[in-house]
Amino acid sequence: MFKLNENYLKLPGSYLFSTIGKKVNAYSAAHPDKRIIRLGIGDVTQPLAPAIIEALHRAVDEMGHAETFHGYAPDLGYEFLRDTIAENDYRARGCDISPDEIFVSDGAKCDSSNIQEIFGLDNKIAVCDPVYPVYVDSNVMAGRTGTYDKNTETWSDVIYMPCTAANGFAPELPKETPDLIYLCFPNNPTGATVTKAQLQEWVDYANKVGAVIIYDAAYEAYISDADVPHSIYECQGAQTCAIELRSFSKNAGFTGVRLGFTVIPKELKCGDVMLHSLWARRHGTKYNGAPYIVQRAGEAVYSEAGKEQLKQQVAYYMKNASYIYNGLKEAGFTVSGGVNAPYIWLKTPGSMTSWEFFDMLLENVNVVGTPGSGFGPSGEGYFRLTAFGSYENTVEAVDRIRTLKL
Amino acid sequence: MFKLNENYLKLPGSYLFSTIGKKVNAYSAAHPDKRIIRLGIGDVTQPLAPAIIEALHRAVDEMGHAETFHGYAPDLGYEFLRDTIAENDYRARGCDISPDEIFVSDGAKCDSSNIQEIFGLDNKIAVCDPVYPVYVDSNVMAGRTGTYDKNTETWSDVIYMPCTAANGFAPELPKETPDLIYLCFPNNPTGATVTKAQLQEWVDYANKVGAVIIYDAAYEAYISDADVPHSIYECQGAQTCAIELRSFSKNAGFTGVRLGFTVIPKELKCGDVMLHSLWARRHGTKYNGAPYIVQRAGEAVYSEAGKEQLKQQVAYYMKNASYIYNGLKEAGFTVSGGVNAPYIWLKTPGSMTSWEFFDMLLENVNVVGTPGSGFGPSGEGYFRLTAFGSYENTVEAVDRIRTLKL
Repeated sequence: MFKLNENYLKLPGSYLFSTIGKKVNAYSAAHPDKRIIRLGIGDVTQPLAPAIIEALHRAVDEMGHAETFHGYAPDLGYEFLRDTIAENDYRARGCDISPDEIFVSDGAKCDSSNIQEIFGLDNKIAVCDPVYPVYVDSNVMAGRTGTYDKNTETWSDVIYMPCTAANGFAPELPKETPDLIYLCFPNNPTGATVTKAQLQEWVDYANKVGAVIIYDAAYEAYISDADVPHSIYECQGAQTCAIELRSFSKNAGFTGVRLGFTVIPKELKCGDVMLHSLWARRHGTKYNGAPYIVQRAGEAVYSEAGKEQLKQQVAYYMKNASYIYNGLKEAGFTVSGGVNAPYIWLKTPGSMTSWEFFDMLLENVNVVGTPGSGFGPSGEGYFRLTAFGSYENTVEAVDRIRTLKL
Repeated sequence: MFKLNENYLKLPGSYLFSTIGKKVNAYSAAHPDKRIIRLGIGDVTQPLAPAIIEALHRAVDEMGHAETFHGYAPDLGYEFLRDTIAENDYRARGCDISPDEIFVSDGAKCDSSNIQEIFGLDNKIAVCDPVYPVYVDSNVMAGRTGTYDKNTETWSDVIYMPCTAANGFAPELPKETPDLIYLCFPNNPTGATVTKAQLQEWVDYANKVGAVIIYDAAYEAYISDADVPHSIYECQGAQTCAIELRSFSKNAGFTGVRLGFTVIPKELKCGDVMLHSLWARRHGTKYNGAPYIVQRAGEAVYSEAGKEQLKQQVAYYMKNASYIYNGLKEAGFTVSGGVNAPYIWLKTPGSMTSWEFFDMLLENVNVVGTPGSGFGPSGEGYFRLTAFGSYENTVEAVDRIRTLKL
């Protein structure tokens, strides 16, 4: 008789955003007259930029003719895209990353959940608390996290690095030594960032203790301050300790297009074995490449027209971020994030829990956000709003929240 | 200090098609004047059908306007696609599969390698020999296959079901009881098929011993005989023992577009737990949906125009299959497959090994095929040719092979 992967059964509840989706759908079904504004899930709302639309049409046309048709893509991505990424995202910032250290994929969610696979089950992970749930859940599914304690909402074999008001929502070096460290800056969910000097401390620490940093830089396009690094490879020595995850979802609106990439420098080794080789093997065996037309769309992100149009798009969302940040601050909320990051992290009023505030917002002003506690125990009493709505909806949502008597 | 997933290091050599690619590239670099014809990897060559191109353009246009823009797709796929699949691929064939038992993905390679994840590590797998390498390699990576014996080229904890000339290249029920049984009909690599009555025996066996059949039906579009089933759910009782994997790569030329789906009936349970729930959880946590434009392209596959155009495309490739089959048979080769399947399986001449024949074909007539031994020990002495080339190249390849003095 076949047996299940029992680790799946240890997962508490369902995936955070599925739960939110179900709650919102239930409310919506019961109140069809209410216009709900969603600032919960980090999904973008602006259409793809014209340069990207043009590239997609061109690539679709190519697929319609035998001479220009493209079948299976190269395992690790087309050279035209990997070259462009290496040049624009790395060499232009002084990072020594070559095209063959870049693995094109269908997005950072897949990469961030799959990357743990190339590590043994006896590695101990460290995560921020609160944290993007995928990092932890993918490790739970693999059986790397021990047992779950319902009271503390924590796993016995996970090192949690609290991100609280006291430390500006940026983690401190853990007391217990981890093997794998998940970091995400600009941070999801808190919107916190670190300076290059602060990130350098993490790199030095990882090199010292022999840990690998899995660095999620999905939101780097929202950075405007000069001393906040866009890539971990801006730090000295990151090549021997860091894997970087990147996404096209937030800088180019690709949430429904699906494109991302992972960087694994060849210098990153365990003994003689390059992690690069293991990930290449995984790509070759368990993945079949991102669609040709999507990789051409990715290339257009780096064209002159694409860059200009996307700068506008990022500015549009950051205008939303400012509106939320300032509007809620004026209304008396304690808020952070929203600068160098598209997420606003706010303290729930009084002694309200995150889910109580979620329900209250949904029911009273029909605004959807994400409960901070869904991201980890230290997120309790906090709430995430995203800047990815339309400007009109964002303004209305904030104005509605301001009408609340709290 | 972090630790690797040591299972990766057990994998012998690199992924079969990567090895072939490297050999061909090396030959090509050394002989830039030679025109190589590739009938190795199962990649299609015909352009996307007009109905699909139109659907892609339409969807791209939608993505360019805020009112019709699509962000994150529903976890399990858009309803418009799942409804169409359920209707056309299942209900129309009398199979009781509902849309919410269908999980849309970016292709059968990912699904066939990821599906093992929802099962415990203590399940014993059974595979055909020869077999599509991904089934075994994904289990090796998970640590489910024991130790590798270089001499026999087999894993200690895998049940091999030899597919040989003696059994018409279709497996017999294994002597040792497996927990997971990988079956693929029409078969890759041998091109063998089974009748509905034969497949029913497998379903009955799986239900009896409590095994799950992972049924890869990626090539069902090539079936022309009425008694060969297109889906395992045409068999009685398959709902309680079978998962079906489907692809758009071969019926619609989506190798570079990336779309597939997996069917897990809700009746398929381990105790009280539906495998459906585990796979849904995996999709929700580790995947972010196939691109909207690609799902619209998938929908067009089932439109009236799409169906008609793709019938022609399948016929085109099957004409190639006939040409290879008949041409090589006339030339004195022992051949099978090529009927109800796009693969031709031929015996290497004399005592030549599969790789010797590969090298000989590459070097003497510049034709690339796939060595049978790359698919498993019982594939030794065999060779796979695919019908997915252009007709002109297929004819020339066969004619070149016929010039060989063997």
